[in-house]
Amino acid sequence: MDIDLSPLRSALADASVDGYLIDADGSDSDQRYVSDFTAPDPYQTLVTTAPTSQSGGSSDPNGSGEIGGRRGVHLLVSGLEYGRARADATVDSIARRADFDYRDRVAEYGPQEGTVRTIAAFLESHDVESVAVPPSFPTGTADGLREQGISVTVESEGIVETEIRARKSEWEIEQIQSTQRANERAMAVAEELIATADVEDGVLVYDDDPLTSERVTTEIEIELLRNGCALDETIVACGADGADPHDRGSGALEADELIVIDIFPRDKETGYFGDMTRTFLRGVPSEEQRRRYDVTQRAYEAALEAVEAGVTGAAVHDVACDVIEDAGYETLRSDPTTETGYIHNTGHGVGLDIHEQPTVSPSGGELEPGHVVSIEPGIYDPAVGGVRIEDLVVVTEDGHRNFNEYGVYLEPRA
Amino acid sequence: MDIDLSPLRSALADASVDGYLIDADGSDSDQRYVSDFTAPDPYQTLVTTAPTSQSGGSSDPNGSGEIGGRRGVHLLVSGLEYGRARADATVDSIARRADFDYRDRVAEYGPQEGTVRTIAAFLESHDVESVAVPPSFPTGTADGLREQGISVTVESEGIVETEIRARKSEWEIEQIQSTQRANERAMAVAEELIATADVEDGVLVYDDDPLTSERVTTEIEIELLRNGCALDETIVACGADGADPHDRGSGALEADELIVIDIFPRDKETGYFGDMTRTFLRGVPSEEQRRRYDVTQRAYEAALEAVEAGVTGAAVHDVACDVIEDAGYETLRSDPTTETGYIHNTGHGVGLDIHEQPTVSPSGGELEPGHVVSIEPGIYDPAVGGVRIEDLVVVTEDGHRNFNEYGVYLEPRA
Repeated sequence: MDIDLSPLRSALADASVDGYLIDADGSDSDQRYVSDFTAPDPYQTLVTTAPTSQSGGSSDPNGSGEIGGRRGVHLLVSGLEYGRARADATVDSIARRADFDYRDRVAEYGPQEGTVRTIAAFLESHDVESVAVPPSFPTGTADGLREQGISVTVESEGIVETEIRARKSEWEIEQIQSTQRANERAMAVAEELIATADVEDGVLVYDDDPLTSERVTTEIEIELLRNGCALDETIVACGADGADPHDRGSGALEADELIVIDIFPRDKETGYFGDMTRTFLRGVPSEEQRRRYDVTQRAYEAALEAVEAGVTGAAVHDVACDVIEDAGYETLRSDPTTETGYIHNTGHGVGLDIHEQPTVSPSGGELEPGHVVSIEPGIYDPAVGGVRIEDLVVVTEDGHRNFNEYGVYLEPRA
Repeated sequence: MDIDLSPLRSALADASVDGYLIDADGSDSDQRYVSDFTAPDPYQTLVTTAPTSQSGGSSDPNGSGEIGGRRGVHLLVSGLEYGRARADATVDSIARRADFDYRDRVAEYGPQEGTVRTIAAFLESHDVESVAVPPSFPTGTADGLREQGISVTVESEGIVETEIRARKSEWEIEQIQSTQRANERAMAVAEELIATADVEDGVLVYDDDPLTSERVTTEIEIELLRNGCALDETIVACGADGADPHDRGSGALEADELIVIDIFPRDKETGYFGDMTRTFLRGVPSEEQRRRYDVTQRAYEAALEAVEAGVTGAAVHDVACDVIEDAGYETLRSDPTTETGYIHNTGHGVGLDIHEQPTVSPSGGELEPGHVVSIEPGIYDPAVGGVRIEDLVVVTEDGHRNFNEYGVYLEPRA
């Protein structure tokens, strides 16, 4: 995928530095995005301010002639990763640590300083004497480079995430759509389990064993694996568990209780996340449970309706708060100390990170075409349980496109 | 679990600093280990040099009277994590960012500087004016604290990992054993698939479809999920794929080819990893495939035999190299540039990280009781394929205890 690093380059030029340096492994999404590469161990990506290759013979490593937005992007990798980097990463140049006498430097100065001196030599080979770095850049490397005479300053705005990664390309939108399709398949597995379970003494029972949060989670995750997705955590939270948005849930699912299911898988190959939530109730909802579901659904629909380019995330959040407050429930807007009612933001960006820019929150700035955000209002109270409904959408000029096709209803269907 | 932070405190006293500060999320294993807590967003852990609480009324948060080795350990968390931290983390004190006017500081200085000023106020509340930090500590926080007049120096030895986490407690050894049991169950699933597949035109076929690396990987990972484990990657690599130790493998598995299966799951609750590898061949091995398997097995047995407290990791690595070189294959010891033969180290520490200290490599120091290391020699050549055999062991005074019971043989069994 081609990328546009010009907002970063403008900031670098304004700051009068020679380049931007990332030192992280591929779990750092800025690193993965800028480098077009991922690896389990740390490697370094340099974006030179002037996007002309300084590297001589090693440019355009995979011979595609299509470096595009990654002209002036240079990688430093271990020998173990070199072959894969050359095959995968469409960047201006790829160097091995061995090209800068890594072994000798480590033998002389130890692993920490030896590595830093290798990075310094790599920077020197690109005529870079000053770098901006992300706030997360390791202090060991920053202080070490300073000792080698290189100026290191922190770029604290997070431009790569906020200005560059936030606007998704068509290709990225397709990847997120693909993950969200897998997500809906997994949600369907969970819904069917809940819909078809027996109810014995108020507890859901499936194949003669209690249907627990853990069992449903496992079946969700198996379906995700079969669809090429990995996952860290899944929420299947019943009753009071569901009233704490961070509680993953445990134990037997109960009839007549709200069950919040929040699934956020990541495609194993592309790294792009999906995110969706549904709330189900097996049995007979109380009047208050039903009312909270309906109010949440109206807040969700109103917030979705408000999403379009040029509107701020703060304004979309306000729309959701309006609906919930009008129905008589507290929000963090009406009472910043409330522990019940609507106690979180309306949404967040989703991409290579499950939580990224922009936010649909009191501090949310203007939405732009290509922004991908969740819309996920909810109402919580340990005495009643939790309700949350969440879709994932991409912002367009005149509205949004919803990645979800899944229906919104309280009673589960087989 | 109780921990012993005295090696860290000695180093802090030697460096004449007031404390040790970690700023990371729970995916940082040092953070998780020292704080007795894990969270998806960054939080801060302070270890004061003098292990007496400076925090007044908030000590012993969960009232157990059992702070033990975490006396003088203080957490700073968001309000969202505060309740869970108080329930889970047995530390000296737990503070909320709100206790230090976080919102006001962010409103006045923005999220980056506002957060740093909140951390500075937290340090001040513990009379800490100077801190050592790990090399991975974020430069944004380090430079920001320096602007607030706090001295920040990098502790580059990695004492928490090398001196403290490397020695596992009995409780940790039990957790690793539990993960390794799940690992063996998953290996058995893979072995049975390969043993019972049909062979058609030289390709393994199962239920009328080609048995691919991806299918076997999915079945391994489903078995791990059913046993409470998560996983990032699994290697099922056949033929030439298996000759690259970093290749995860893809496509149909072939008869008469070596198949390397390397599984490294992580228990979802405890975070402790397991790690094991077996190599199978369905069909008839060539003389050279058989020979390489036998040599690898002898290297593995000899290296295991050499493991005991007081022996260096380097010496164990040499034992494996001796066997492989004596059989006529290159190693990185005999030829540092070789791309075939034995092209990696003999082992690594395993715990909260899949790769941690100590190493069983040319730079491996003295093994100590409680060290948990993999023993995993191998022989590689794209023309023949790869062989690797790996068990996980804990070092004891007079030898080792092996976490594996799985047999070592080339032909898969149903």
